[in-house]
Parts: sequence; C-alpha cells; structure tokens
Amino acid sequence: MTHTFNNELALRQRAKLAFPNGVYGHQSIARLSPDYPQFIARTQGARLWDTDNNEYIDYMCGYGTNLLGYHHPKVDEAASKQQAIADAATGPSPLMLELAEKFNDICEHADWSMFAKNGNDATTICVMTARAQTTKNTILIAEGAYHGSSGWCTPQPSGVAPGDRQHQISYTYNDVQSLLDAVNQAGDDLAAIIVTPFKHNAFTDQELPTQDFANTVRRLCDTHDAALILDDVRCALRFTLGSTWETLGVLPDLCAMSKSVANGYALSVVTGNNRFRDGASKIYATGSFWFASASFAASLATIKVIEEESTIDLLQQSGDRLRSGMQTQAAGFGYSLRQTGPSQMPLIAFDDDPKSAMCNFFFSEVVKRGVYMHPWHNMFISGAHTAEIIDETLIRTEGAFVALKKKFG
Amino acid sequence: MTHTFNNELALRQRAKLAFPNGVYGHQSIARLSPDYPQFIARTQGARLWDTDNNEYIDYMCGYGTNLLGYHHPKVDEAASKQQAIADAATGPSPLMLELAEKFNDICEHADWSMFAKNGNDATTICVMTARAQTTKNTILIAEGAYHGSSGWCTPQPSGVAPGDRQHQISYTYNDVQSLLDAVNQAGDDLAAIIVTPFKHNAFTDQELPTQDFANTVRRLCDTHDAALILDDVRCALRFTLGSTWETLGVLPDLCAMSKSVANGYALSVVTGNNRFRDGASKIYATGSFWFASASFAASLATIKVIEEESTIDLLQQSGDRLRSGMQTQAAGFGYSLRQTGPSQMPLIAFDDDPKSAMCNFFFSEVVKRGVYMHPWHNMFISGAHTAEIIDETLIRTEGAFVALKKKFG
Repeated sequence: MTHTFNNELALRQRAKLAFPNGVYGHQSIARLSPDYPQFIARTQGARLWDTDNNEYIDYMCGYGTNLLGYHHPKVDEAASKQQAIADAATGPSPLMLELAEKFNDICEHADWSMFAKNGNDATTICVMTARAQTTKNTILIAEGAYHGSSGWCTPQPSGVAPGDRQHQISYTYNDVQSLLDAVNQAGDDLAAIIVTPFKHNAFTDQELPTQDFANTVRRLCDTHDAALILDDVRCALRFTLGSTWETLGVLPDLCAMSKSVANGYALSVVTGNNRFRDGASKIYATGSFWFASASFAASLATIKVIEEESTIDLLQQSGDRLRSGMQTQAAGFGYSLRQTGPSQMPLIAFDDDPKSAMCNFFFSEVVKRGVYMHPWHNMFISGAHTAEIIDETLIRTEGAFVALKKKFG
Repeated sequence: MTHTFNNELALRQRAKLAFPNGVYGHQSIARLSPDYPQFIARTQGARLWDTDNNEYIDYMCGYGTNLLGYHHPKVDEAASKQQAIADAATGPSPLMLELAEKFNDICEHADWSMFAKNGNDATTICVMTARAQTTKNTILIAEGAYHGSSGWCTPQPSGVAPGDRQHQISYTYNDVQSLLDAVNQAGDDLAAIIVTPFKHNAFTDQELPTQDFANTVRRLCDTHDAALILDDVRCALRFTLGSTWETLGVLPDLCAMSKSVANGYALSVVTGNNRFRDGASKIYATGSFWFASASFAASLATIKVIEEESTIDLLQQSGDRLRSGMQTQAAGFGYSLRQTGPSQMPLIAFDDDPKSAMCNFFFSEVVKRGVYMHPWHNMFISGAHTAEIIDETLIRTEGAFVALKKKFG
C-alpha cells in the first residue's frame, strides 16, 4: 500500500490560484477526504491512474460518462474516423440525422430528437419546450433533485436571481400526496413535472420509484395537459435501450439524456413525442458545438456496442456481484451496510452511522487501497467492470474493513 | 457550375421528421436560400463539401469554431494524443490546470479561469459570478445582442418564463446616453454590464465600439461596483491573444470565450480578476464534460499555433484582401457594398437595398458557385484562408455579380 501524493499536492496548490478556488463543480474533491486524487493522469477500461501513478479501480466512471469502459476501441475508432472527416463545421454531417433516427427508434416515446452538449442543456430544452407547447410556466421539481447548474436548477443559491426560480413548486420524490398538493398549487399553470428515473440526490440514500408514484406522475401530466419530463441524464442506457421508465411501462413526453450516451464524448440528447413537436420547434436552442459530428459517431457506436455486448445485462450482473460481495464482507466484520438504489449505480452507507463518520473513514481507506468509491454520490458500474475486477475490488476493500474495525470496533 | 442537391434534398426530408422541424438553431438553413446545403459531408482547411460532393470555400468556419483551418494537424494531433490517454474521467488531467495558467497568462485581466462547453455556459457563469460577488441582480444587456440560447438570453420568446428576464435592462450599443440611462434605472442593484467586443447582432450592420463607449462601460462598472462582462465568445483569439478589448486598452472583470479557443473542439472559457474570485468560487457551475481533457490539449495547441504562425496578422491580411477585392469587384459592376465590422469577421451588404433583395439573391448565387457566405450573420476568416484562396473566391463571386447585374441591372 504505497499511496504517495507528491505531484498531486503540488498540482492542488497551483489549482487554488489558477481556478477561483481549486477545481470547481462536481469533480472538486474539496468535500472528500484528502486521500482522493484531484487530478487524473490516465484511464483505461475500469481503471484510472493519478499523477503519482497510483492505480485505482474506478467506480465513478467519470461520474457516469464511462459506460462501456474507458477508451472502448469501437467507440474511439468511430469518433476519430469522423473527427478526421468533419467535426464542428458550418453544418452537421448526416450522422446527426442518423443518430436522431436511432434515438427515435430505440426510445418508445420518441418521435423526434435534439442534441446538445451538457445534461443541463437537455433538461433546459425540455423545460422550455414544455412551456412553449403548453403556454404555461410552472414546473414541479422534486426536492433536492439535481437537474443541472444553471440558474433555474443549480443546488447552490449563490448567483441565482429570484426570477430564476419564480415558476417552480417542489414535491417529494415517491410521495404521491405531495405531488397532488403541488399540482393543486400550480392551478391552471402546470407546464411540466420533471422527475429522475429514481431518486439519486447526493448526500442521502437512493430510492427506487414506486409504480404508483410513476403512474401518478404520468396521469397528472395527462389530466393537466402538462409534460412529463424524465431527467434521464445520469441513468440513460444503463437500464434499458430507451428512456429508463420504460422498465416501469411509463413513457415520458420529453426525455433528457447525457453522460453515457457517447461513452465519454460530449453529447446530450432530448427525445420527445409528437404532442410536443410544435413546442420544440418554436424554441431557439443552439450551441457552438451542438452539431459537431465526432460525438454523433461515438454515440452510434456506443449504442451498437450495448446491443452487441449485452452491456445492460453485464452492468446488472457486475453491480449485483459487487453489492453482495460488499454485504458479505461487511457482515464478516460485523457491519451492516445500507446499499440503496439500483446495483448498477450503487451507493453504500453504514447502518448505525448517523454522522457518516464510519462511511467517510471507510471510503478514505478504500481509496488509499486503489478503489475509487464515493461516500455520498451514487457510483457507476461500466461494461469494463468484469467479475474479475469486482473480485479484485473486494480483495482491496478487505483491508479497509480491517482499518475500520481497528478504529471503530 | 454543377450544383446538384439529390442527397441533400433527401436528407432534408428525413430531417423534417427526425428533428422537431428540421435542423434547429444557428445552423438551420430555414431562413436562407434553398441553395445552401444543410448537411456537410467533409471539411478541410478553408473548404467544405456537401453530401452531393459540391465543394465550397467556407466563410462561416463552423460559425467561428474554425480559427486555424479545419483539421489543423498540430491541434488534431494534440487532441487525439490526449484522447487516448484520458478525456472525460473522474477528475481532470493536469492539462486543465496548464490551460488555466495559460489563459491567466495571455489575458491581461485574468487571475483565474474556468472551463465549460458552450459559449452560453461561459456567459451564464459570468452573470452568476457577478451576482454572487456583488449580491446585486440587475444586468445591462445591449439591445439585440446575442449571448446564448438559455432562458435569460435566447433571442426567441417561446419557452421563456417571465422570471427569466426579470433583472435585466437594455441599452443601445455605442450609445453612451442609453448606457447612463440604464445604469440610472438600475439604481443600487447594478450587478453587471455585459457587452460584446463589437456589435455583431444578426440581420443588421456591424458596428465597432467607440473608445468613448468602451471607456464609459468600464467607468460605470467601477463607480457602481459592478462587473464588466465581455462576451468574447465569437471574437476571442481573432484579434489579440487576450480579451478582445485589450486592443482598446479596456479590461473586463469577467470574460467569456468559446468558438475558436480549441479550433473546433468543444470548449468555453471564463477568465476573471481577483475582485471576482470570491464570487466565482461561491457559485456552483459544472457539467458532465467540462473536465474532459482532449479539448484542453486542443486549446493549448491552438494557442501555440496562433503564436507560431502569426495567425492574428494573417486573419487581418486575408480579411482586408477579401474586403478590398469585393469592393473593387462590386464597383466594376456599378454596385456599392456596405462592409461592416472588422474585416476578419466580415459582413457584406449592398447599398440602396433596403429589403435585402439584392443581398439575398447575390449570396444565393455565390453559394451555387462554391463560396459559402452568409447574407445576414457575420462571417469568419480562418488561418487557412490564404491570399490564394481569397483570390479564388473572387473568381467565383464574379459570376454572381454577372447574375445580379442581369436580374437587378
């Protein structure tokens, strides 16, 4: 167990000055133990290396952008081939059309698609489309849900003007009554209900949706002429080759996807049905790089690999293997774990650990042993996380449990 | 002059269905003559080819993303090398830090930098930073200026909620009195004045800033404890290796750059001074692909090429050559052109053409002859637009003037 941080610490010092206050946003390690590396030198498959050449099995997968394994050869080949032909240009290549037709095909609800760069572009397009189509303004948003970092949704109040949040009402995920109350409060101004496929808020247990909750969201949108917006940015293509609530038989009107859709190439997707076609065609949404074709090639290749390699089944199997392995290992040390959400997007907490002291200590020991796991943000399994890699992970976490036992008993 | 459109027309038909209403956003050709290709098959240097293999000298340069010529070998090599090492990962590579230090070095006002994907991400970060730092809300925006397509700035009202525009006052570019009036109206709530380096609104003549206007913006921000936000998204790196108003000796507090900064790879940049460091560190701004390192490598290489190949001088020379060549050619046919803005970002209109009938006809004849020019959006010169290519352009435009003469006399 050698975990030296010479280069890392020097880089962090420089980063404090070169950026406003070190690396910002979701990849900042400021709220993690100092044993986490801020800078990543190299990635491959399910692994990454920091700038001191420490190696980690990576369970964050670029916070979800890595679906098939880092540098999947088929995706990288497709992207670099297209890159050499045309990427950002004065118009899109026909690949943009091909990809739209692919999403319209694989997503049961989709009659049309749009592409952008950020997940937040996609959620914003959905909200604007809902407002344009319904000519109403109020959006229902689940308490604590993350939909991006622009003014209408960023989780931090700094820099947000009052107007940014003016037409929003919050509800509680999985709480049908709170949803009914919020719809009631919206009166005749309900434009949309935005919802994630499951509750994956940071700093809290994950929660799968009840069938009743999902059905109710759908029904309320229908009866109030509002859009069901599925924020599938984090989950898309990990559970089914379509919008994630297809697994519950509930179709959105508008769906925002990103992260995994091009296995690491910058892309986000909005899919919508014909009811909202007119609204989508009325809004003005664009970006300098939204028509760049290398990412379309990468996405087409990603979808092909998912189909060919049964990635979705693999993620489930590896997720389950990690979950049961961790549970067994913890039990052997006398601990009980709280593993919430789907196993493909795991979150691991300790029972009887109200202040997360054990959790934080444990994961700082885990990262020192070459497993990059997160204490309070859902993690991700990729197609490169084979059974062998899960087993290798469990060998490494063993020592962290020993350290935990020593400290907490 | 063979300009067949068989593939193009078939693709357009499919696009009407696959997207909400054909290709959307700034790359939609819906408001241009049907002789413009919507889909681009291939790009190289200063040229592009449509899907019917018609070749064009391209004066849109990907609407500004192409600065050095499409597929500049040094940029593509740097990006693909980094792509193979680490792109989107669980943390940024040290290249992100290196690039921040580079921007802090080349931009006179910059003490820190942040990176994102869209130009609109950068302008939004500037606005949020100004609000976070000043704890005030009102933003002054020039009438008709384009700062992106999210709710607070999209030029189309559809899908915009009233709250999105609640804390804004408009002023007229280059009109000092209108600026004073707007500041007055903002009272003690002035958070920022956002301004483009020159007026490059679509559908209208471009306008260079007067020194008095630029000085007044700076002075008003100083006296009212507000941020001068330079929206340099379209202009950055085309006029100077820093924020564009350095050419006027006026430094912004916050500067948003994008388009050209990585020669076609998706990247935007915010640079700021120490006065706004705290505000920038307080806001939560992030995106799934903001820490992807191939674009940082591309940007570092782009800046190096600009320095090595004196790109900025080249753009000026080629822009001037095109401008005077067009002027002479037009005069030979008895026409007087109105060429506005800097020659590196040309816009060409006809005098005595109040309804733009001549302009629209002329450019539709130009595009049929293999020159992709735009009738109402500023164009761009790239480093690949050599004197030879400008001269080749003028040979092609000659026939368009003949056609114009025939139709309009």
